[in-house]
Amino acid sequence: MDFKHSDKVIDLQERLTAFMQDHVIPAEQVAEEYLREHPDHWGQPPVMRNLRDEARRQDLWNLFLPQDPRGGGLTNLEYAPLAELTGWSPQLAPEALNCSAPDTGNMEMLSRYGTDEQHRRWLAPLLAGEFRSAFSMTEPAVASSDANNVELEIRADGDAWVLNGRKWWSSGAMRPDCRVTFVMGVTDPEAPVGRRHSIVAVPLDAPGLTRVRSTHVLGYDDRHEGGHAVIDFQDVRVPQDHLLGPRGGGFAVAQGRLGPGRIHHCMRLIGMGERALAHLVNRANSRVAFGQPLADQGVVQAHVADARVAIDAARLLVLKAAWRMDREGAKAARHDIAKAKILVPGAIKKVIDDAIQVHGGAGLSQDVPLPMLYAQARFLQIADGPDEVHRRSLARHELASSPTIKVA
Amino acid sequence: MDFKHSDKVIDLQERLTAFMQDHVIPAEQVAEEYLREHPDHWGQPPVMRNLRDEARRQDLWNLFLPQDPRGGGLTNLEYAPLAELTGWSPQLAPEALNCSAPDTGNMEMLSRYGTDEQHRRWLAPLLAGEFRSAFSMTEPAVASSDANNVELEIRADGDAWVLNGRKWWSSGAMRPDCRVTFVMGVTDPEAPVGRRHSIVAVPLDAPGLTRVRSTHVLGYDDRHEGGHAVIDFQDVRVPQDHLLGPRGGGFAVAQGRLGPGRIHHCMRLIGMGERALAHLVNRANSRVAFGQPLADQGVVQAHVADARVAIDAARLLVLKAAWRMDREGAKAARHDIAKAKILVPGAIKKVIDDAIQVHGGAGLSQDVPLPMLYAQARFLQIADGPDEVHRRSLARHELASSPTIKVA
Amino acid sequence: MDFKHSDKVIDLQERLTAFMQDHVIPAEQVAEEYLREHPDHWGQPPVMRNLRDEARRQDLWNLFLPQDPRGGGLTNLEYAPLAELTGWSPQLAPEALNCSAPDTGNMEMLSRYGTDEQHRRWLAPLLAGEFRSAFSMTEPAVASSDANNVELEIRADGDAWVLNGRKWWSSGAMRPDCRVTFVMGVTDPEAPVGRRHSIVAVPLDAPGLTRVRSTHVLGYDDRHEGGHAVIDFQDVRVPQDHLLGPRGGGFAVAQGRLGPGRIHHCMRLIGMGERALAHLVNRANSRVAFGQPLADQGVVQAHVADARVAIDAARLLVLKAAWRMDREGAKAARHDIAKAKILVPGAIKKVIDDAIQVHGGAGLSQDVPLPMLYAQARFLQIADGPDEVHRRSLARHELASSPTIKVA
Amino acid sequence: MDFKHSDKVIDLQERLTAFMQDHVIPAEQVAEEYLREHPDHWGQPPVMRNLRDEARRQDLWNLFLPQDPRGGGLTNLEYAPLAELTGWSPQLAPEALNCSAPDTGNMEMLSRYGTDEQHRRWLAPLLAGEFRSAFSMTEPAVASSDANNVELEIRADGDAWVLNGRKWWSSGAMRPDCRVTFVMGVTDPEAPVGRRHSIVAVPLDAPGLTRVRSTHVLGYDDRHEGGHAVIDFQDVRVPQDHLLGPRGGGFAVAQGRLGPGRIHHCMRLIGMGERALAHLVNRANSRVAFGQPLADQGVVQAHVADARVAIDAARLLVLKAAWRMDREGAKAARHDIAKAKILVPGAIKKVIDDAIQVHGGAGLSQDVPLPMLYAQARFLQIADGPDEVHRRSLARHELASSPTIKVA
Repeated sequence: MDFKHSDKVIDLQERLTAFMQDHVIPAEQVAEEYLREHPDHWGQPPVMRNLRDEARRQDLWNLFLPQDPRGGGLTNLEYAPLAELTGWSPQLAPEALNCSAPDTGNMEMLSRYGTDEQHRRWLAPLLAGEFRSAFSMTEPAVASSDANNVELEIRADGDAWVLNGRKWWSSGAMRPDCRVTFVMGVTDPEAPVGRRHSIVAVPLDAPGLTRVRSTHVLGYDDRHEGGHAVIDFQDVRVPQDHLLGPRGGGFAVAQGRLGPGRIHHCMRLIGMGERALAHLVNRANSRVAFGQPLADQGVVQAHVADARVAIDAARLLVLKAAWRMDREGAKAARHDIAKAKILVPGAIKKVIDDAIQVHGGAGLSQDVPLPMLYAQARFLQIADGPDEVHRRSLARHELASSPTIKVA
Repeated sequence: MDFKHSDKVIDLQERLTAFMQDHVIPAEQVAEEYLREHPDHWGQPPVMRNLRDEARRQDLWNLFLPQDPRGGGLTNLEYAPLAELTGWSPQLAPEALNCSAPDTGNMEMLSRYGTDEQHRRWLAPLLAGEFRSAFSMTEPAVASSDANNVELEIRADGDAWVLNGRKWWSSGAMRPDCRVTFVMGVTDPEAPVGRRHSIVAVPLDAPGLTRVRSTHVLGYDDRHEGGHAVIDFQDVRVPQDHLLGPRGGGFAVAQGRLGPGRIHHCMRLIGMGERALAHLVNRANSRVAFGQPLADQGVVQAHVADARVAIDAARLLVLKAAWRMDREGAKAARHDIAKAKILVPGAIKKVIDDAIQVHGGAGLSQDVPLPMLYAQARFLQIADGPDEVHRRSLARHELASSPTIKVA
Repeated sequence: MDFKHSDKVIDLQERLTAFMQDHVIPAEQVAEEYLREHPDHWGQPPVMRNLRDEARRQDLWNLFLPQDPRGGGLTNLEYAPLAELTGWSPQLAPEALNCSAPDTGNMEMLSRYGTDEQHRRWLAPLLAGEFRSAFSMTEPAVASSDANNVELEIRADGDAWVLNGRKWWSSGAMRPDCRVTFVMGVTDPEAPVGRRHSIVAVPLDAPGLTRVRSTHVLGYDDRHEGGHAVIDFQDVRVPQDHLLGPRGGGFAVAQGRLGPGRIHHCMRLIGMGERALAHLVNRANSRVAFGQPLADQGVVQAHVADARVAIDAARLLVLKAAWRMDREGAKAARHDIAKAKILVPGAIKKVIDDAIQVHGGAGLSQDVPLPMLYAQARFLQIADGPDEVHRRSLARHELASSPTIKVA
Repeated sequence: MDFKHSDKVIDLQERLTAFMQDHVIPAEQVAEEYLREHPDHWGQPPVMRNLRDEARRQDLWNLFLPQDPRGGGLTNLEYAPLAELTGWSPQLAPEALNCSAPDTGNMEMLSRYGTDEQHRRWLAPLLAGEFRSAFSMTEPAVASSDANNVELEIRADGDAWVLNGRKWWSSGAMRPDCRVTFVMGVTDPEAPVGRRHSIVAVPLDAPGLTRVRSTHVLGYDDRHEGGHAVIDFQDVRVPQDHLLGPRGGGFAVAQGRLGPGRIHHCMRLIGMGERALAHLVNRANSRVAFGQPLADQGVVQAHVADARVAIDAARLLVLKAAWRMDREGAKAARHDIAKAKILVPGAIKKVIDDAIQVHGGAGLSQDVPLPMLYAQARFLQIADGPDEVHRRSLARHELASSPTIKVA
């Protein structure tokens, strides 16, 4: 057992830290101003191009995608501390490195399940950052936390699939440079539960596909990432070879993206927690109330200490899950991933909320990134499976396991 | 001891419930659409005029302002359940009844401390709903939770006061129909602590006064209420008779608005909690996951029960504080008000957050009022004094009190 | 609506406060020493006799039992603040006033469902304090939180009932002066669910009845109250007229004792919270750490304020439930009772736990009553129905109710 | 970075697991019965001798004490999972392996600071298990969480030290086989703060030393470990060479035992959490309420999942601290130790409390080890420094540190 990162990772951490400090943090205000002044703009502001160019130049591109020669050649365990650093600026940094959701998950899925033709058509340009992609799973009409409820129809019709239904929370799909979404739906309604769903790739300009609107998250429209599209499918036709992975195997294919996706989210959340704590510390060190610096007040100190403990515990849980993914695969590590997914968003949310409180009114305003970070953490208690679903699944595993020592 | 409202109150509750159901709830979508389509509009959408006309017609106008013949003739205890009902739709209902912050607080303050001329100039038109007002206390440069830190300069210069400094969180001041703000600042820097500050009324079109921008609350711009203005004062001059209450008595005067203001906020929060619970119940009764209606799932039931308990306990604490205010005055009741202010926002925030979680992704979106309600509740853990300040003050009182029974 | 107690209650509060201060608090150490020096003694120490004599002398006897001329002539609402005062010393005061569980519940049940003969045989001597009684419901072999699981057999055999089975948590039954226990069991196994159970009175010296041992609560043996007996019934015979209430009506009869019993527990818990807070305040005012009195430290102040808020909110919820019981009966008030039962033990437990923490090591020791109070509060999250069962039942009611205002 | 234990550790884990399963768990009931039947017995029951013989035979003796050839030859990181296993039965297993507090801490301290003569006199027999020792730091009269408050006088008088004062929480000192206690007191009242205190070894049979009584922990007398003695020192004389470490260096010497002591406690708490979870799982799998096995109920599943997550996160934090202790020493690792000490007792306490709740009444009784485990976890939120003190110290470090990335 060893808690030290390899020299390779330490070198990458240092380089990425410098990139964050020198390029990403200063770009935040530029980006924010651009979006404020262009209220109809969907997608990243122009400054993103500079960041991406710089990341490529510094060889900080595509750091994810373990065990695929097209990726950054890093294991999940090696990627974790880097993804964490990008979490300090979650609206800019992950995309600057071409490591942002939902593209990373889609690339994982394509890498694992795609045909050569699908790799050529979608994986290669996504890795090159030529366009963006979305993922359409959740539906407004059903409790999608139970994936069996997903009911969009994908009917085989000659040499095509025909889609009818409505999706939402297709993050990124409002951006003009988002070209394709991977859609889960029912291809085989008569098959046994668990074998009914498949995933097909659908170009966003396909006839019959309408981006109806975008949903907000706690008041944030998330235009920088292309919002969260509500998409209507009316007799949308795509060729048969747009099927990704085996027919009826949609859940297995989706897990191939969701497992890594969840742990990536958790990695970045650690960085968000660190950022919130950095702001908390700054504030505590610079304000005086009732004759005492905030930094000397017990309640503030308790927030600082609890934040440090929560972040460190959360990080270790994430690293352990990444380590197991590398050794045994995402499926075998699913309970470790669930543990992180259960703990991390809530723990980091609390860190951010405490940082907000110590800031007073400023803490809720756009003058600090805290409310935006809060919205991200809160979102992740629901996105990619609400806490309750992960608790249920982890508990069932635990209830069926034997204890280390038998007790009466 | 009796927990039953008077017949008069029950009648008003019934009438106001019908008004909410028939006029306010249906207006919500209209209002939201108008604001979405007019992104530069500050203040209420046109539908508000209809609501206000209707409220006047139904004699549901100015229900607050106890013990002033100009008000609704209700005690705080009588007003509480009505303010609660307006909390079901906090962006529309309070203003529809001319019972919204910060005007109510300003009217309380004017009623108590204003001269006849000040009554004529500001109180009468505010009661008539002719224009709106703001209150400027908090400052960006200092920890304003400790009011002694407030440092905007109000210098006597001949027959005028001259203001220099910067305020923020002047809620409502971005609206064109907001005419005046009541500004706390230092008139007597050499006086003992607690006797240095005064309040003056400043027209928002005074030369040297600049509304710089508006701050958001957790991603919400709160345009309907006129935002939260950052206001710059550079040699702003107002006549000497714009001083409200005694010179050096700013804190006492402000308490005259803050005490009632805090309890009004708490009253409305009860209604926000009820609304969140109503949505939670609707959702639980209409969705199925993992083969079981949400309403039958233990975790959801726990949320429902805990919400009901939290709301009921919060309400009783608020009613008790209102009752004491009526009997002994706001100052004597300040610890009861503090108790409500400590408990209610956090308790209701949790109710709303649980309701969000049960909704899944929808819960965070603009399709339900829950995220907006969440932002309101979170805001009130900071606005009008952060929880920490009220805890401190209540604790000091408690630590200095004798127990009912002496123990070793 | 009025939050003021009647003059009659205020007078009783004052007299009972003096009784607590002058007689009960000083007796605590005497009682504790006696029990420590007599490790095999079950039941109250001799000092209890003095307390009971004094309570009778001061006309502070049998204050409970509303609406029965044999009781103290107080409503539940009137009794609540008095029961609260007894909660300051829960091991002595309730019994000193002949107002302790489980006798109070049994007397309520007898008063409501007993025949004249049963009144003569059990109610009258219990009211006179001549002997004590127990209640046997829970069973070790089944999840008794679901009362339908109760399986002790009560078979009709000629003119007798014959009992076979095992009960536990028969509080008080280890005392020599405990003469009778009221036992719930299955008389009609073929009847529909809810109509199978009945209650019979069983003398503790009946042949075949064995008090096997007593269970502890968090390390406390509760000898003063007669422990919590595990009782074995092997062909125990009692006459037919020992049936209490209608055959098959056991649940309804039990509710007649459980409703009042639960709210009485909650009333006393309020007093336990007050006592814990009094100790917390004493300690905070008398200790210095890191150069600052504990009373000036923010974390301690937060505990004090939160304790005060929690206690006051809890009290109001209890009073409201008592008020409804008086107006509409225990059954109609069952959801109000459930609300109190859900909130109060957990809230007061936290108050006590915080008080412990502020005391450091002393807080966990026998030098303060805090750990004993903690055990009581923790016990009441399970006794008389665990929190989960009350949440479930309240939630089902709530989920079936219409909201005040209909929302989309 | 690697989360896998070495083969050596895995082998020890397997052997110790078997020892726990085959010898310790079955001895629990034997030990409990003995102590129940011998209410005046202080110290372990006779079965302990068998366990210790067996542990020696299996070479599971003295596993702690890293970097001292007299110890088990294990690093802290290697010892951690073994100490965890002993936590499954905290009253028996640690002592069976001669790895129980306070002896381990005393041995660490002696190993580090003792003279050869002190090693011969106390360290060797403690390592051989010939007698037991105590540690006397806390005092009833002052807030000992701030160690500067410690005021027992240790006066130099000729060739002796003379002690006057009172200590408590001298755990173990009520046992007849406890021979010596290490006492912190003031040798140099005029020296600067931090240089006033020293530690001297005092035989428990020294004239003037009186074991006054033992304090309980939440109702537990902890006789098995020799209680928690209140000790009175009246002109107690010990030779000058009983001074341990440098005069005036008492705090530094004490840290040499407290750092490892704290992390050992945390290691064992992980095992206590595992044991509680094992009981929770057993119960959930064997009971039915309201027509559904507990194991299928959402609230129970949430407890199970949260317990697993909390235990795993706690374990990782402990292992990380142990790892740093091995690499950089206990002093450099003090903030990592503080993190574990802040998180672990509270987290495990909650696991145990949830397990209690799922058991219903049984959960609070002596029929399961849960209440005893609860008392241990609760105790450790205070013992060896209350949570507040560790939070304060960690926060001060954090507030003085630079963030990874500078933010505005």
